Amino acid sequence: MIKVGIIGSTGYAGAELVRLLTNHKDAEIVWYGSRSYIEKPYAEVYGNMFKLVDAKCMDDNMDELAEQADVIFTATPQGLCASLVNDEILSKVKIVDLSADFRLKDVSVYEKWYGIEHKSPQYLDEAVYGLCELYRDEIKGARLIANPGCYTTCSILTAYPLVKEGLIDPQTLIVDAKSGTSGAGRGAKVNNLYCEVNENIKAYGVATHRHTPEIEDQLGKACGKDIVISFTPHLVPMNRGILATEYASLVPHADGSLPTKEELAAAYEKYYKNEKFIRLLPYATPTETKWVEGSNYVDISFKIDERTKRVVMMGAIDNLVKGAAGQAVQNMNLIFGLPEDEGLDLVPSFP
Amino acid sequence: MIKVGIIGSTGYAGAELVRLLTNHKDAEIVWYGSRSYIEKPYAEVYGNMFKLVDAKCMDDNMDELAEQADVIFTATPQGLCASLVNDEILSKVKIVDLSADFRLKDVSVYEKWYGIEHKSPQYLDEAVYGLCELYRDEIKGARLIANPGCYTTCSILTAYPLVKEGLIDPQTLIVDAKSGTSGAGRGAKVNNLYCEVNENIKAYGVATHRHTPEIEDQLGKACGKDIVISFTPHLVPMNRGILATEYASLVPHADGSLPTKEELAAAYEKYYKNEKFIRLLPYATPTETKWVEGSNYVDISFKIDERTKRVVMMGAIDNLVKGAAGQAVQNMNLIFGLPEDEGLDLVPSFP
Amino acid sequence: MIKVGIIGSTGYAGAELVRLLTNHKDAEIVWYGSRSYIEKPYAEVYGNMFKLVDAKCMDDNMDELAEQADVIFTATPQGLCASLVNDEILSKVKIVDLSADFRLKDVSVYEKWYGIEHKSPQYLDEAVYGLCELYRDEIKGARLIANPGCYTTCSILTAYPLVKEGLIDPQTLIVDAKSGTSGAGRGAKVNNLYCEVNENIKAYGVATHRHTPEIEDQLGKACGKDIVISFTPHLVPMNRGILATEYASLVPHADGSLPTKEELAAAYEKYYKNEKFIRLLPYATPTETKWVEGSNYVDISFKIDERTKRVVMMGAIDNLVKGAAGQAVQNMNLIFGLPEDEGLDLVPSFP
Amino acid sequence: MIKVGIIGSTGYAGAELVRLLTNHKDAEIVWYGSRSYIEKPYAEVYGNMFKLVDAKCMDDNMDELAEQADVIFTATPQGLCASLVNDEILSKVKIVDLSADFRLKDVSVYEKWYGIEHKSPQYLDEAVYGLCELYRDEIKGARLIANPGCYTTCSILTAYPLVKEGLIDPQTLIVDAKSGTSGAGRGAKVNNLYCEVNENIKAYGVATHRHTPEIEDQLGKACGKDIVISFTPHLVPMNRGILATEYASLVPHADGSLPTKEELAAAYEKYYKNEKFIRLLPYATPTETKWVEGSNYVDISFKIDERTKRVVMMGAIDNLVKGAAGQAVQNMNLIFGLPEDEGLDLVPSFP
Repeated sequence: MIKVGIIGSTGYAGAELVRLLTNHKDAEIVWYGSRSYIEKPYAEVYGNMFKLVDAKCMDDNMDELAEQADVIFTATPQGLCASLVNDEILSKVKIVDLSADFRLKDVSVYEKWYGIEHKSPQYLDEAVYGLCELYRDEIKGARLIANPGCYTTCSILTAYPLVKEGLIDPQTLIVDAKSGTSGAGRGAKVNNLYCEVNENIKAYGVATHRHTPEIEDQLGKACGKDIVISFTPHLVPMNRGILATEYASLVPHADGSLPTKEELAAAYEKYYKNEKFIRLLPYATPTETKWVEGSNYVDISFKIDERTKRVVMMGAIDNLVKGAAGQAVQNMNLIFGLPEDEGLDLVPSFP
Repeated sequence: MIKVGIIGSTGYAGAELVRLLTNHKDAEIVWYGSRSYIEKPYAEVYGNMFKLVDAKCMDDNMDELAEQADVIFTATPQGLCASLVNDEILSKVKIVDLSADFRLKDVSVYEKWYGIEHKSPQYLDEAVYGLCELYRDEIKGARLIANPGCYTTCSILTAYPLVKEGLIDPQTLIVDAKSGTSGAGRGAKVNNLYCEVNENIKAYGVATHRHTPEIEDQLGKACGKDIVISFTPHLVPMNRGILATEYASLVPHADGSLPTKEELAAAYEKYYKNEKFIRLLPYATPTETKWVEGSNYVDISFKIDERTKRVVMMGAIDNLVKGAAGQAVQNMNLIFGLPEDEGLDLVPSFP
Repeated sequence: MIKVGIIGSTGYAGAELVRLLTNHKDAEIVWYGSRSYIEKPYAEVYGNMFKLVDAKCMDDNMDELAEQADVIFTATPQGLCASLVNDEILSKVKIVDLSADFRLKDVSVYEKWYGIEHKSPQYLDEAVYGLCELYRDEIKGARLIANPGCYTTCSILTAYPLVKEGLIDPQTLIVDAKSGTSGAGRGAKVNNLYCEVNENIKAYGVATHRHTPEIEDQLGKACGKDIVISFTPHLVPMNRGILATEYASLVPHADGSLPTKEELAAAYEKYYKNEKFIRLLPYATPTETKWVEGSNYVDISFKIDERTKRVVMMGAIDNLVKGAAGQAVQNMNLIFGLPEDEGLDLVPSFP
Repeated sequence: MIKVGIIGSTGYAGAELVRLLTNHKDAEIVWYGSRSYIEKPYAEVYGNMFKLVDAKCMDDNMDELAEQADVIFTATPQGLCASLVNDEILSKVKIVDLSADFRLKDVSVYEKWYGIEHKSPQYLDEAVYGLCELYRDEIKGARLIANPGCYTTCSILTAYPLVKEGLIDPQTLIVDAKSGTSGAGRGAKVNNLYCEVNENIKAYGVATHRHTPEIEDQLGKACGKDIVISFTPHLVPMNRGILATEYASLVPHADGSLPTKEELAAAYEKYYKNEKFIRLLPYATPTETKWVEGSNYVDISFKIDERTKRVVMMGAIDNLVKGAAGQAVQNMNLIFGLPEDEGLDLVPSFP
């Protein structure tokens, strides 16, 4: 039985980890970390866990945690994990960091976009980017996983095969993403009040959102060059879900003809055919966030627009599952040699 | 492996049965009945089931179904099950009827409230009211289960111990219930359009809702006399959940003193202490539908109002789970001698 | 042109005052008070007012305000208005207090339910309860108006004629009320975050909500005796609206017969026939909050339940209009001798 | 007093016309056309209009209407207006057509995108495209107005000055639009049920939506050449509002430098400085649909992305007001020589 410690267990991503691990056969939570609710019964913070979790919230003591746990999930704001991790801790325990601290290999890019100093850049090389479908083998032997961002997971997986196969021009890529409000976290802010979010939609972080370099980094690796993309997140009045609508120009063949839908479909099949958590919808079927709610699925679809010579790619995930806790559990399963889908047989809930 | 047929598998309750049974270890669905979508792949009707269900929808042929299945769930409007069931079918297959056809023992009450003729009143005596916490033993040997209504499940369980123990006067009982919109079904009606329901709340069926006699019937049995109650359902802009707020006058002791909260709590404990799916919240903690979403739990709480000498009881369920499909599976488990919670270890999802 | 000062103009009720007064022919706002946003342009706090309001937010200086304004609206938490008002101020300016400070004539009741000391009980006698339909004449000459609470406005008006005419037994009155989330204010609290409120319904303040004594006070006056009632508010996932579902036993005639629907309708007509802002719906038509959204209307309906000998009364208002700012403007109109509906010809918005 | 007839008064756009005209000083509705509800009191179809509208719904008789009305609004599906209009009618009455019938000058484009035959192409030349800010002078003398689509109004106005001034390359234009559900109409369809739309977001009509050629037509005129653009609408779980997020490459100056934000701002000022209904937000401020709800405003903003050399333009409208009924009234005001904003002094409602 894998012993799990969670730092930040009372945020929405942390709470989703608790939900998923409660039904995981080979893992048990031994530490419900929450600096805001120390000593408070966890089920008083999250009433849904009444009778399911008896434990109280504990402080974020990573040294102590390293003694008691086999794996630590840090579901905390950027900066915290990097400030706590050290050689001794890494020698004792695996870390799956749900924050951004180890996602970008270039420390200067991190410091520019996040505006804070990186406290342990020495681990950037070692850290493995935990997008399981792309880095499965590296994850298996890793001690430190950088769990990808929610927007990035959806944005990257939706475009990856077409970028990798050179079917689209990555410099033309525009990602227009829409997220449910749980992505904004559980902090008590006026902007996230019910009456401010409900019956409203808006963009935010236009041309400055921190998930941008993460997408550029990974898709740049896929095509072997530095790229810049447009990424615009939007806040949608719903609890969960990310929808990415992605636009890119198709790269014509030598004879000037455009790639066909069969060619594009083949590219998706090539990379995702055997991926349990990726569902390739029939051609041109719009993805819907509701179809993946509560599950670890990524739904992907695309449509060619002959008129503009672009392809519109569509991806949908549950931001708290595949975009955070589900992927973290998937990483844990890989690290410990468990079946990759253990605890993740989650059937999407409708309605 | 229990072979399951579902008649009405594309309504919301039917779809929830599919969701729950997909993860049930000892059952498999062999028949996805849906008169509206015959021959259409089920996953085209419910995109959440893409890659999870390969089957096509089939017609509602109960004779054929009785050959192929061990149990049939009828998630259909009232009247259908009663019109189809007969001795031969009941000799071959168990039936869990999610409609109202066999819930009321008195056929005249059924015909008055539902306004239709009952087509097989000869089975009313045999049918067992499938409120598992109250009729567990009878369910175990039954061939025909009348799965309770969603409002009734919540309303009855919330008040039952206090009625049964004579702590409240059942004639003063007022049930003010609030339901998410999935309770209204998937029929294409203007009243259920997004823009009509959203940002709105209203009562409906005031003093005439068909779940009224079902509540009166069961709580009347509990106190051993005929009772009439006030029951008012409301439509709430949310997908799932029923909240019942119930008011009743406390019955004073012989010395004129009111029952204490400890006495009331003891009554609840007496009946529900060992019930896995009933969670008795700490005194006066309001129940919230969100805390039970997606699960088979019934959350119950109460508060004494010394000023009015009334008790306010509060109950919450997910109308599609404990109020329909979850309870139906719980009934199936009891009928077939499986662990009662098989396939029902559903952790409520938040947010 | 009446000069208006608003203390608390950046709360939801204050913002609604701004919306309504912007289109009021005979009033202009000269002071946008907001302690939290001093010096910030009002339109940066409320983007909807961009190009409509040029002013900046100002501190809450009631002495200064009394010099500049003809009327002050205090849309602030309880305690503030009572702590600021004095003879000099009242000699210069009219005050419409949207808080609870002057609603209850009995200072001990106020202090018990609100848990704070009343700082100027000497004005309780003078203050007029600003429920315009009941206190129109007193309001006309008043300097200090206690604008009623949102729940109370709806709850009282819905039951008043039947209580006044002795058609129902007020001691049996149960008010089950449901409110949109703007009633919870704009404070940054976890409980009011989008993800906590959305897809959820719950009761709160059970048997302890502060609007209870206000309802009891007014309906007690109507029937000429002290009464206690049950009042339970609920939080509904919508921005605006209050729905009150009220239950009471009908008082039989001397011959034992129950009052008829015609008799009840006549009582409503007697008091409300000429009231512009009260709409008596056809018999038994459920009121819907959406039908009054954005307007100053109170929609009222009722249905007799012969079985239980009770009547179910239903009322609906927009909590920010008739439940707060609209009624405050109606009070201002009465005080200054303007047409009562000036600035209040608001057509409900649907959808 | 202008006499108004509405064909299709019980759809959402028609109902919004009724809401707006109820408070219009110089217009009165003489004909509430609704084929679905003939003889039914209008206030029974839309309870918000109780006590405000006494009339009954009438059949769609355009000949009769032409006798009684000064202007007819056709808020009906495409094809109807074109099939009814003729010389005699146009000689008697003005027509503001809210459908698509007269928006596209090229009948073959209409027939290709809408898939129906155009029944009166002879009026295409005469019809004026009723985007008031661009065609004000032509509208003033017109008999037949093609009221623009909701998506198009928002999409065109948001990009128009930058296209017109040659600051962006229109062939790179990508419009990612998001709409509230009232845009889908009041038809009873499963897809528009509350439970299908709520907690969900999806694209639809990808690369095929009928508003595409309308945007291309108008922006093509602005830049003097034929253009093709990408346009993707999305369905958002809210009642009202359209948000358009638009991407385009900036056209560098001769020296290779990019246009500055001041240059872009100047372009917007040039065309919209004196437009009452267009609000140019401070640089880079995201537009929010909630800030325009219930009003005739178009909020516009933009942000330059130096990295990608693109500009992100953002526009927001209320789809039922500026996107339909409000613009129709604005057109009526222009036709009849009234102040353009008569009846349109609508303050956005928040929350």
